[in-house]
Amino acid sequence: MPPSPRSSEVEINLPQVHEEVSAAFARYEDALVHNKVDLLDELFWSSPNTVRYGVGENLYGADEILKFRQGRPSTGLKRSLQRTVITTFGRDSATAMTLFRREGGNKLGRQSQTWVRMPEGWRVVAAHVSLMDIV
Amino acid sequence: MPPSPRSSEVEINLPQVHEEVSAAFARYEDALVHNKVDLLDELFWSSPNTVRYGVGENLYGADEILKFRQGRPSTGLKRSLQRTVITTFGRDSATAMTLFRREGGNKLGRQSQTWVRMPEGWRVVAAHVSLMDIV
Repeated sequence: MPPSPRSSEVEINLPQVHEEVSAAFARYEDALVHNKVDLLDELFWSSPNTVRYGVGENLYGADEILKFRQGRPSTGLKRSLQRTVITTFGRDSATAMTLFRREGGNKLGRQSQTWVRMPEGWRVVAAHVSLMDIV
Repeated sequence: MPPSPRSSEVEINLPQVHEEVSAAFARYEDALVHNKVDLLDELFWSSPNTVRYGVGENLYGADEILKFRQGRPSTGLKRSLQRTVITTFGRDSATAMTLFRREGGNKLGRQSQTWVRMPEGWRVVAAHVSLMDIV
């Protein structure tokens, strides 16, 4: 069957929505560099449908993601972000794309997240992290 | 300001919506392996906000993405997908996460996409592709 047309224009980057997602993104980043595992877990959607591709692992479901977090080294997590672009679509969904570098690292990181507004708040429903050589 | 609560439950994987996104995803995959550049370009959101992290490049905006497509080698694109998970959120947004392998390749690919229903149809608004060693 053909896709049903969207009833109206998609409102891109509504200021209030963008502000909310930017705040959630900043909270996640802080949790990541300080290894606040509980908060990282909270900010990911608690569902078997959540998927996270990491630098060296492919995790399906919130349980696998949490298990990975708990086994993760808790030092050397500091990083700086570059070219971060957060884009919101309507009131309830968003993407957050950013490059990152670790101090003294010779790789460029790329992190992409899809955020959805759930009844419990904004949650990451899918994420992908990878490294590339700096050329 | 605190995030506004979502008014209702998010409807996950509504059958019609899931079917639409799955069809769009299949169309994209076919375009990719057959290097149908026009269709690949059509299926990405035509916006300066579109971001695509590829295996070896970080592209910001539909123009950069198209330029990359046009310069891409058109052979050796065949691949098989594994563990594809498409999840839809409400009627207008979705994620598509998949692993892939190329024939004879010794790397495992990971592709993640965020799809949004635009007035012109379902479009990829953000994507990330990376490879990892098969261990």
